[in-house]
Order: sequence, then C-alpha cells, then structure tokens
Amino acid sequence: MAFTERVKQILSWYPSDNPGTLTHLSRMLNHGTLAGTGKMVILPVDQGFEHGPHRSFQPNPPAYDPDYHFQLAIDAGCNAYAAPLGFLEASAGKFAGEIPLILKLNNSDSLAKVGEPLSAVTGSVKDAVRLGCSAIGFTIYPGSGARNVMFEELRELIAEAKEHGLPSVVWSYPRGSAVSKDGETAVDVVAYAAQIAAQLGAHIIKVKPPKDFIEQPEAKKVFEKYSIPTKTLPDRVRHVIQSSFNGKRIVIFSGGEAKGSEEILEEVKGIRDGGGFGSIMGRNSFQRPKDEAVKLLKDVMGVFKGK
Amino acid sequence: MAFTERVKQILSWYPSDNPGTLTHLSRMLNHGTLAGTGKMVILPVDQGFEHGPHRSFQPNPPAYDPDYHFQLAIDAGCNAYAAPLGFLEASAGKFAGEIPLILKLNNSDSLAKVGEPLSAVTGSVKDAVRLGCSAIGFTIYPGSGARNVMFEELRELIAEAKEHGLPSVVWSYPRGSAVSKDGETAVDVVAYAAQIAAQLGAHIIKVKPPKDFIEQPEAKKVFEKYSIPTKTLPDRVRHVIQSSFNGKRIVIFSGGEAKGSEEILEEVKGIRDGGGFGSIMGRNSFQRPKDEAVKLLKDVMGVFKGK
Amino acid sequence: MAFTERVKQILSWYPSDNPGTLTHLSRMLNHGTLAGTGKMVILPVDQGFEHGPHRSFQPNPPAYDPDYHFQLAIDAGCNAYAAPLGFLEASAGKFAGEIPLILKLNNSDSLAKVGEPLSAVTGSVKDAVRLGCSAIGFTIYPGSGARNVMFEELRELIAEAKEHGLPSVVWSYPRGSAVSKDGETAVDVVAYAAQIAAQLGAHIIKVKPPKDFIEQPEAKKVFEKYSIPTKTLPDRVRHVIQSSFNGKRIVIFSGGEAKGSEEILEEVKGIRDGGGFGSIMGRNSFQRPKDEAVKLLKDVMGVFKGK
Amino acid sequence: MAFTERVKQILSWYPSDNPGTLTHLSRMLNHGTLAGTGKMVILPVDQGFEHGPHRSFQPNPPAYDPDYHFQLAIDAGCNAYAAPLGFLEASAGKFAGEIPLILKLNNSDSLAKVGEPLSAVTGSVKDAVRLGCSAIGFTIYPGSGARNVMFEELRELIAEAKEHGLPSVVWSYPRGSAVSKDGETAVDVVAYAAQIAAQLGAHIIKVKPPKDFIEQPEAKKVFEKYSIPTKTLPDRVRHVIQSSFNGKRIVIFSGGEAKGSEEILEEVKGIRDGGGFGSIMGRNSFQRPKDEAVKLLKDVMGVFKGK
Amino acid sequence: MAFTERVKQILSWYPSDNPGTLTHLSRMLNHGTLAGTGKMVILPVDQGFEHGPHRSFQPNPPAYDPDYHFQLAIDAGCNAYAAPLGFLEASAGKFAGEIPLILKLNNSDSLAKVGEPLSAVTGSVKDAVRLGCSAIGFTIYPGSGARNVMFEELRELIAEAKEHGLPSVVWSYPRGSAVSKDGETAVDVVAYAAQIAAQLGAHIIKVKPPKDFIEQPEAKKVFEKYSIPTKTLPDRVRHVIQSSFNGKRIVIFSGGEAKGSEEILEEVKGIRDGGGFGSIMGRNSFQRPKDEAVKLLKDVMGVFKGK
Repeated sequence: MAFTERVKQILSWYPSDNPGTLTHLSRMLNHGTLAGTGKMVILPVDQGFEHGPHRSFQPNPPAYDPDYHFQLAIDAGCNAYAAPLGFLEASAGKFAGEIPLILKLNNSDSLAKVGEPLSAVTGSVKDAVRLGCSAIGFTIYPGSGARNVMFEELRELIAEAKEHGLPSVVWSYPRGSAVSKDGETAVDVVAYAAQIAAQLGAHIIKVKPPKDFIEQPEAKKVFEKYSIPTKTLPDRVRHVIQSSFNGKRIVIFSGGEAKGSEEILEEVKGIRDGGGFGSIMGRNSFQRPKDEAVKLLKDVMGVFKGK
Repeated sequence: MAFTERVKQILSWYPSDNPGTLTHLSRMLNHGTLAGTGKMVILPVDQGFEHGPHRSFQPNPPAYDPDYHFQLAIDAGCNAYAAPLGFLEASAGKFAGEIPLILKLNNSDSLAKVGEPLSAVTGSVKDAVRLGCSAIGFTIYPGSGARNVMFEELRELIAEAKEHGLPSVVWSYPRGSAVSKDGETAVDVVAYAAQIAAQLGAHIIKVKPPKDFIEQPEAKKVFEKYSIPTKTLPDRVRHVIQSSFNGKRIVIFSGGEAKGSEEILEEVKGIRDGGGFGSIMGRNSFQRPKDEAVKLLKDVMGVFKGK
Repeated sequence: MAFTERVKQILSWYPSDNPGTLTHLSRMLNHGTLAGTGKMVILPVDQGFEHGPHRSFQPNPPAYDPDYHFQLAIDAGCNAYAAPLGFLEASAGKFAGEIPLILKLNNSDSLAKVGEPLSAVTGSVKDAVRLGCSAIGFTIYPGSGARNVMFEELRELIAEAKEHGLPSVVWSYPRGSAVSKDGETAVDVVAYAAQIAAQLGAHIIKVKPPKDFIEQPEAKKVFEKYSIPTKTLPDRVRHVIQSSFNGKRIVIFSGGEAKGSEEILEEVKGIRDGGGFGSIMGRNSFQRPKDEAVKLLKDVMGVFKGK
Repeated sequence: MAFTERVKQILSWYPSDNPGTLTHLSRMLNHGTLAGTGKMVILPVDQGFEHGPHRSFQPNPPAYDPDYHFQLAIDAGCNAYAAPLGFLEASAGKFAGEIPLILKLNNSDSLAKVGEPLSAVTGSVKDAVRLGCSAIGFTIYPGSGARNVMFEELRELIAEAKEHGLPSVVWSYPRGSAVSKDGETAVDVVAYAAQIAAQLGAHIIKVKPPKDFIEQPEAKKVFEKYSIPTKTLPDRVRHVIQSSFNGKRIVIFSGGEAKGSEEILEEVKGIRDGGGFGSIMGRNSFQRPKDEAVKLLKDVMGVFKGK
Repeated sequence: MAFTERVKQILSWYPSDNPGTLTHLSRMLNHGTLAGTGKMVILPVDQGFEHGPHRSFQPNPPAYDPDYHFQLAIDAGCNAYAAPLGFLEASAGKFAGEIPLILKLNNSDSLAKVGEPLSAVTGSVKDAVRLGCSAIGFTIYPGSGARNVMFEELRELIAEAKEHGLPSVVWSYPRGSAVSKDGETAVDVVAYAAQIAAQLGAHIIKVKPPKDFIEQPEAKKVFEKYSIPTKTLPDRVRHVIQSSFNGKRIVIFSGGEAKGSEEILEEVKGIRDGGGFGSIMGRNSFQRPKDEAVKLLKDVMGVFKGK
C-alpha cells in the first residue's frame, strides 16, 4: 500500500510531535479498509465497564468474550480497536500485531453514579506500551464539576504518551451539573467540547453527533448574529470540525445507542458530508450478530470511501 | 504430578502476562487436593481486621493464633491461604514453602464505619515478594462513592505486582450508597462487579453467590427481554461466569456468614453446576473445630472434584 | 493483508515476550513485498559511520543523502530500514510511518582502529522510541578481547527495549585477536556467534554467510565425528539455523562486499535453500544506481518468495 | 505431598533469609522425584554459550531446541532446570510453572579466551523475576586474577535476589593463573572454593567432584598433620561438605565431561556416601538420546533416594 | 525581519526535532548581520582553557576580560558566541539576551597532554539552560584511542539537550594515535569526521578547512576511482559538505591559527564557493585590536553575503 498524500497532509497538522507519535498515528490511518483515505472507523468496547455486562453483551452473547471484539475489528477492516485494560490484556498477546489498539485509560461505571461525573483511571501509558498499543484513549466530561480533575489527568497522560511515541484519542462528552440533558448534544456544546479536547493536546477527538439545539445563551447570540447554519447534520458537523482547529484535528463521531442500519448509514452520510473524519461504533456493531456487524461496518466504510 | 491440559487452558487465557505471573498462577492451581483440576478452594482469614478478634476467633479459640490458619489450610489441602500483613508476617517464615500465600493488600475495619466504604491499604507488593506470596489480594467496593479511589489503587498495585511476577486476586463486593442491601448480592450487580474486576486486570475474581434479585432497572429490562434465567443458583452463577470474559477469568465464590455444613455443600454444588471455579471459605472453616473444618473443606473439594 | 499462519508460528517462538514486543516484531514481518511470508529483506546503512562517507556513498552519490535510503527501502518493498541515529533523525520525521525502522545503537568507525574491536554506543532505547522505530540494532564482536563489554551492554539494552515493547536485531560478527581472518566466516565460528546472540536474547540475528572452513580444533572433531556437511552454502546455512535454537530464532544473512547481481542471487538462493530467513543488504543495494538497486532487491525477494 | 522434616531442617540453616527466599528454596527441594528428600538433581544447559552449539548439541541433535531441555527436566523429574537468558526466554512462557527454573546470570564463551577467566553478566535479577525463576545462578572462578570482579558482582546480585525472594546457586570453579590444571579439582582447592561461595552468601553451591590431589603446600601440611582422609571419593566429598559450613549449605556436584552410565552412577554413589546433596548433570544427560537420558537421571535419583 | 525561505529550508532538514530545538537553531540563524541568509559567523573563545591565557590573550590584553568577547561578538554582528562555562558565567547575566550563546561542554588543556586525546566535560546541559544558551558545544577527536568515550558522552548530551530544546554544535577534530599530523586536515579524514558528527546527531558541525591530502589508503582508492576533485579549497569543502548528509547539515569552518586578513578572506571565499555555511573565528578575531577585529569579521560576513 502506497503512503497517500492525504495521510501526509493530516500528519503535517501535528508538526510538533516526534516521529514516534506520528508513526503510530499513521499506523491507525493506514490500517484496514479505509487505509490511506484519511478516514477512520474504530471499534470501541468499553461498555462492559461503563454499562455492565448484560446490558452490553446479552443482545449478542458471543460478545461476552474478549477475543470476539478483536476478531470483529479485524474481520470488518476497522482502523483500530479501543478497550479498557482487562479486555486488551485478555487477548493482546494472542492477536499481537493484527490490529492497532487503543488502551482506554479511564472508565466510569454506572453502578455508582455518585457526585459529579468523573471516571477512574484504570490503565497507564506503560500498560499501553507493554500491550503494543498505537494510542491511549481518555474520556473527559466538560460540564462536570470534576472536569478540571480530568483535564489535568489528561494532560499529564498526553505528555507521558508522547514521550513514548503514542498519540491520544479523547472522548469528549459534555456531562454533569452544568449542562442540561439536551445540552449534552447541543451543537454549541459539542463544538466547545471538541475545542477543549484539541486545546488539551488530543490527536483524535471523539464527540457525539450534534443536534439542532443551542444550549448556551451567549453562544446562541453568536450563532444568530453570524447565521451559523445548524439545520442539517452536515451543517452541524461542519461547525464542529471547524471548531477543531479549522479541520486540522481528526474528529470522529460516535454512533450512540443501538439503532437500525438504515438510520445509522443515514447519520454516517451526514457526518461524511459535513467533513467528519469517521465513526467510532460500539453498540451498533457488537450488539448485532457478527455477520450483520461486519456488513454494517463495511457499509459505513463504504460511505466514507464514497467521498 | 503431571501438568494438566485444563491448567494449560486456563493459563492460555492470560496471553499478555509474563512467565513469572503465569508461574505463580499455576502454582496456586497446582497445589493441594484440587491441584490440576482447574478448581480452587482458598482459605481467607482477614476477619480479625474486618470484624474484630472476638467475633472472628472466639467461636474456635485456637484460631486466635496465626499459625493455626496456615496449618488448617495445609491440612485441608487448600490451594492457597489469604490474609493481611500481620497474620502472614507472624507465620510465613515458619511455614515457608508449605502453601501458596495471598497477601491481602487492603483491609477495612468495622470499628469506624464512617463515610462511603473504603479500605485502607495495609500491605505492599514488596511485602508480598518478601513473604514469598504467590499473589496479591485486594478488595474493591463497586457502588461505593469512594469506588474510584479503590479502582485506581488496584490498577497501580496490579501493574506493580505483574512486574514482580505476581497475579492478583480481587474481592469485588458491591457496597455503599449506590446499592441497596439486597442489591449487594443481586445477580445483575454481582455480575457487574465481576466484570469491573476483570476489566481492571484481576486474574482471580472473588464474589458472593448471587441471589435471585435484580437491582438496576436498566438491567432488569435486559434480563427480561433476553429471558436470562436467574431462578436457580447454577443459573445465576452461570451468568456471573459469562460476565467474567465469557468464562475466561477464574471466578470463585465466598461462603459468607457461618452456616451449617449441609447448607454449605448445597451452595457449593450450585456454584459447581453453574461453572464456578471454586470457593473461598473463611468463617465457615476457621470458626469450626479444626477436624470439622478440615472435613468440611475436604467435602467441598470433593464436590468440585465431582464434576 | 491477512495475518498468516507462518507469522503466527514465528511469533510463537517468543512466548516470554510482552504483546508490545511481539507487535513490533510482527510489524517488520508484515511489511513490504515479503509481508507474511516469514522472510525478511532489510536495508542497513551504517557504512557512512563504519567505513567513511566516500567509500560508502561515492559509487552512487545520491546515497550521500539520508532521504535516499528511506525512499530506496520503501520503493524496493523492504521489511525494514536500519541505520545509526544521525541518518534516522535526518528523515524519520519526514517519512513517519512509511517503513519500519531499526535504530543501530552502536557503531564502530574505521578511522581509529585501536585495541580490541569495540563499538561506541551511539544511540539509546529512548531515541528508538522517540523516532518511532520497530526495533533496536546492536553489534557484538565475539572473539574480541572486549566482547564481554559488548555482551553486557547488549543485555541491558535488550532488557530496556523489551520494557518499551521493542525487539532487538543483533549483528553478531566474530572479530578480534581470538579469531583468524578466515575464522571470522568459518562455519563453526558463525554458528557459535549466532548461538551467543540467541542466548543473549536477540530476536533477530544477523550473521555473515559461513564459508567451508572450520576454525576451532575442538569444533573440527565434532564436525568430523558426526559428519556435519559443510560443502555447500545450504549445508552451512542449515547448520547456522540449527545452531540458533533449532531454527526458532530469525536468522538473516548479510551480503558483505559489493559484487555482481548474478553472484548475489546465487548466494541468496543458497541462503534460502539452507533455511535462512532473509538477507540484509547494504552496499550491494545503495552503491548501485537506484533503479538497479530496486531491481536487485526485488529479485532477491523473488528468490525468497520462490520457496 | 507432605512437607518433610528433612526439608524443614535444611531451611533452618538459613535463618536470616526472608520467607520469600526460603519459599523458593523449598520449591526446588520439593519438586520432582526427589521432592522432600533434601537431595537434588538439576539439569543445567549453558554449554551452547560456553562450548558452542555443535560441541554441545550435535551428539543428540534434538537438544538444539530450547523446548527439549524443559521437557527433559520435566520428564526425568529433576528438581530444577538451569540455563542462560536466551534458552529460558525461548520456552519459559510455554512451560510456565512446570518446573523450577534457575537463570544463570553470567556466562563465558570459548571463542575468545583472552586474559584471566571472567564471565560476562548476561542476565539480571529482574529477568529472573519476570521469567518466573526460583533462583539465580552465577559462576565464580576462584584462582582467577579477575576473581574479585566476580566475587563483587555475585554479592551484589545475591543481595538483589534476596530482596526479590530468590535464593542463589553458585557454580564455584577454580580456574585461572593461580591454579594448576590438576589443582582445579584438587580436594583442598575444591573445598576452599566451596567455602568462598558459602561465605559470599550462596544458598546452593555447585563444585566438581574433588580428586585425590592437594594443590596448596600450606594445605598439604594440614591434611597430613591431621590425617584428613582423601583416598576415596566419599572421603573427599565429606571434606568438601564439612568445608561448607559443616554441612549446613546445600552442595551439589557436577558430572563434568560425557562418560558411561556405569561410571556416572559409581561417581554418584561416592557423592552420596560422602554426604553430597545431589548432582547437576548437563552433558551426561542432554547428549544422550532422550529415553537414555531420562533413564540415567532416574537411576541417579534412585541412588540418592537409596540413602 | 521576515523569516526567510532559506532558514525554513534549513530547519526542514531536522524533521525529527521538537519545536524548542528548532526555535533555538533558528535563533542563531536569525541573529546578527547574516540573519536570514542561512550563513553563520560564530565567535569562539575557548583558547584560555585550551592554550593558556598568555598565548591566547596577551596579543590583545583587553581579551583577558570575559566581557570583552561578548561585546566583540555583539559589535561585529556575529550569529553566536561560544565559550566554556567560566567565560559565560562571568558575563551572561550582564549581557542577557544580547547575543545567542553556545556553552562548550568539554575542554582540553595543554598543560597535561597525557595519553590519547580526550577532553574533560566542563559543563552541563543544565548549565546551558541556566545561562540562557541557544546551543551546547562539544568536541570529539575521531582518530583518538579515546574516541568512543567522547562519542558516548556526546550522544548522551545531545539527547539531554534536545529534551531541553537545545541544538548541538560539534567540533569534530581528528587527532590521536590513529591519524598522522597531516592526516588531521586530510580531505578524506575531515569529511569522515564530519560524517561521524552528523551520525551522532550534531545540528551544526565545525571542522577545519581540508587540505589537498588523502590519509587513508582505502579512501585514496575511492577518490582516484571516482575522480573526486580535491585540488582547490572549494572542491574539498564541497566534498565535506556532501559528506555531511548531502548538504543537509550546517557545516562551518574554523580559521585555525592567526594569520593575515588577506589570507583569511581568501580562505573564506573558498569556503563560501564550496558551499560552506560559515566560519567560526577565534584567534583571528580576538587577538587583533577590537576595531580591526570588528572590521575583519564584517568583511568575512560580507564574503558570505556575496553569494
């Protein structure tokens, strides 16, 4: 596979990183079906920890098995597979080198939702290196009263990761007492969350598809004054991408709750048309039977290749 | 004793661990009456710290003596003996090499129950190495407002233990403001607690036998939608095992409060029939006179050998 | 590209390594024209330091440029490119992710040949990580009065590299007061040098093609007593491979001084027929005009694919 | 297997060691056919590095394979298997827990015999821990001009090993400009070498069977004055054992060069009758076909059991 | 002052360096009369240590004063001023920010010329940071029996300097038992010395103007076979530049012993015409009265601007 101009262009947006970090970033961009296109589809499986095992895996029981997700990501031709320590430990030695891995370094359970949202740090950069990962992953909750704890943990981990030649993927999910339920996916809030992740040094940013809603009164004034379009998903995605260093950071979008294939592909087209770099699709893939999941992921990749 | 295929299979579930960690894991699997079967019966004695000496040892006064428990575990043919620092320090030099040891690295007293449940770290990996232990032990309380403190302590200790070739045994006991009293042994909560321990990197997970009760509304929907059976203990144990990486983590069950031998053996049969890997039995053994305790433990091992 | 059974088999020979080290090893085995075959052709360019710039690069002046060698290795479809710090620094940021890199951590100049052969340590594991390398390289001179210095430096670097998930490539070149000039490529000495590298923990071993000559009297007795065949190159390569943990270490052969393409391909066939894992070809490639070099390297790969 | 009084007695000779070190010591004493007898038969395979691969393995070609020796030691029921880093790395992950391992931390090649005998340090305590070893091994050459280098390296390694709960096995082989060829196995010199190892803190001492020859004039006077018997092998072994803290250190004897089974068993009987603790038998085992080697090792164990 | 394309091109040759290192490099390239041209004239004053104070400063007594050299470099419009710790310490606080500084981290005195040439390390990266320097300086003596010591010191210092965002300037002066007196400035040896510095990671390389002489027989063959021109100084400079990564490293030339202005300017023209990046001129400047020195340095800069 020849190294494409598009990947070189993307790498040029990170001129302060050492070659090690760029190498791992290019590894994810150059793996799987979308290799070289500058687009990414990542399989994330942290729901066992975040939502509990039955809610996550019972819809498709083979998914209880850690090997299952490695194989699914490989068979579907994903760019990378992201999971917490335990899931990677359980299978990394067996699938060594078969697919780029992202170790999610913090996780939040839904057994004890006490106080402001704050994840526990459940892995280290050293673990990521030992397990052969190509990146670290980390979740921040802008809007949480505990946001600064997470911002500070993140920047220390990003710095340590870079020293080890590892880029970072940041899940930036507004949540907590400072945002309304609708506000969590408001276009102004999502764009702001993406900007925060970018300013903290994220190489890849993961946000939820923004809805046509504006949470913050101050933001509302600006959207109105400058007539920033927010009607269609492509409009809103475009704003989020622009808010991520004018499109110079890789921003990918999560699929959220399980839904129908048709609906998913429609949403993915919107993401693509707005200039999104890809999708990160967990429940919508591993909660389907494997052949359906592989088909769906391939269809999603087809959409991204379509442009 | 020949190395069995079953033990090799179990070790193959930990492909990212170094040979040192696998060696100590196999040491516990290959010791005592159940050696080579892939089943384990462990004697844990942390009740002196957790419940106080009289509540723990007065029912069988010789148990006040640290030597007593080493000898009990040896005579009964247990796979390992687990205790806090003081108890191991008191006798490890005398019984060196006679039985695999697990140093419990945190403990919670019941003198001061203040705030959310949180154990104190009472030992170190270095202590475990110095005392010749084959594993570290650690308790987490999913459901506690202080859970993240314990999750983060645990992951650092697991990482340090692995560097020293030591596997980890995690007591995962839901407790705290986020779970009801019944919820502590609800089948959904126990399964979730096992999943959390596995994702944090535990090699062996200890939970309580789950009851036929579902705590979380979101979980209830899933149990109903997919008709997950929870009537019998084997049904529930089976769900917990599945929730522990599809059976690819060693899960053992505690006996809980002291009760009659009949009742215990019945419960153990249920654990065995659901695919449980063994029992960890404290009060039900050391609070009986020694010969009765040895007999009971041997009977329990007999049940596990029976399948 | 599907992950092949052959690569999985090779990785299985390193069961004590962490997934990180296996991942980088598989990266080299899965890159370029020979990806997945279990064979390797590596471009090494340390001659600027070892022999001086004019002797190395004047035959093909574009080779004075560090970018040239990256591009040559990429265009020829090599598995990896190996060079000292300066050459990698000069271009790694530009070619990040395009080809697996091996940082040679020690080098010997030919300006000052004083005392027993001993290379200077010219790079670190941290450099290799920072530059995004997939392995460290190191030269030992068995037969040198200073061999123990190199053996000890090597084992420390291998240990540090493994912690960072990096495998090691060891150039094992007998040299020094204890071996005659002919002895440097004697079949017994080359096989012994390969064994030493393997015992020190090398993942990939590089030796010179052995000649039909036996240096050590004690070895001669054994070769005669057991009629070990040494007439043909395949015979001798076979003995070297067997001496490298019965073929369970990757052993590749250098091309040595510049010579004609015909002669090179003949030698490569011998290496292949004896079970050699590949070639590392410096002067014979970069001292030719680029198109000739690419053709030769592809022909060499063709030979290895032929079996 | 019950813990024997004899093993407890042996452990009582090391009252200053922590329980971790005693545990690993008892592990070796309690493994294999001789478990619990206080006797040991160890398989050592460092000859690939020390004598070269062909001299070592060609007599029985399957021995080129690192797996071979693990399996041989297991099948023969040895107490432990000792080898350099490379051989252990190659198979420890595969045979984890099946047999106690001793990592030989230094090695000497016979390609370059330059200067006074001095081995290179080729492994670390950290490696031993990572690979799950039960002891470190180290060779000293009393009589070498470089002896102090080795003595000092050894004491640092023993101290570090003890911190990690690992006992030490010391090969004490008089060699170098200060001893004659015959003197290397002279009874006074062997006894002195054993004493030095014991004084440096060795837990297990390996020496060669002493010959009826006295090297040092000063020693000769004493042997004569006090009529120390040296005629028979039992006499001489008894003197060496006495010289090792009055029998309170485990002393085992090497078999040396390959020879006939009859001859070996005769020698082993002499070692047993003199109070030797066991044999360490490399070439005499792995250079035979496997079934013959297993038979011989079992016969040797039979001899030791006979007393 | 606009940032020139030429400076950007030069910085592009160091794609693996962090922005800090590039920033300090550009600082030197963008200071003084030659700012932005890609050419450099540096004032070095280490002769007080290297040759003694009277030999160095008596010809122009104000030069005994450390302030003198700062002011000279400033008044003459040099790109940077290089000196050992003491000279910089004495005045850096006073002239803070007025001119880029290079701290020479090793120095060799001429009181005790004992053994193979080897400089003492007389400063640290930490000193360079504390004193506000823009680079570290270091001297290596290729050809010395002690060369490996210096090569290893240098690579560690370069690595540490880069971490602190400091580039390195390497004085590469062949010297020692392996080169003849004439050989020290032989064109093949100077080119080789430049290559070694580049491979060790130097950002700026300082060599002596090469003479029309070839030292090494192996090199002579190459120069003759490929008719490498060496008659004129531009020819020889061109070869040295090519030998420094095909012109992708900054190579500057020293003036050597004091001589007439005419002679100096003639030599500088040769350096310029061969593609040299500049001059480093110590004795020829500070041993003249200040106004003459300023004039000479300005004339030298005029020559470099002329092309």
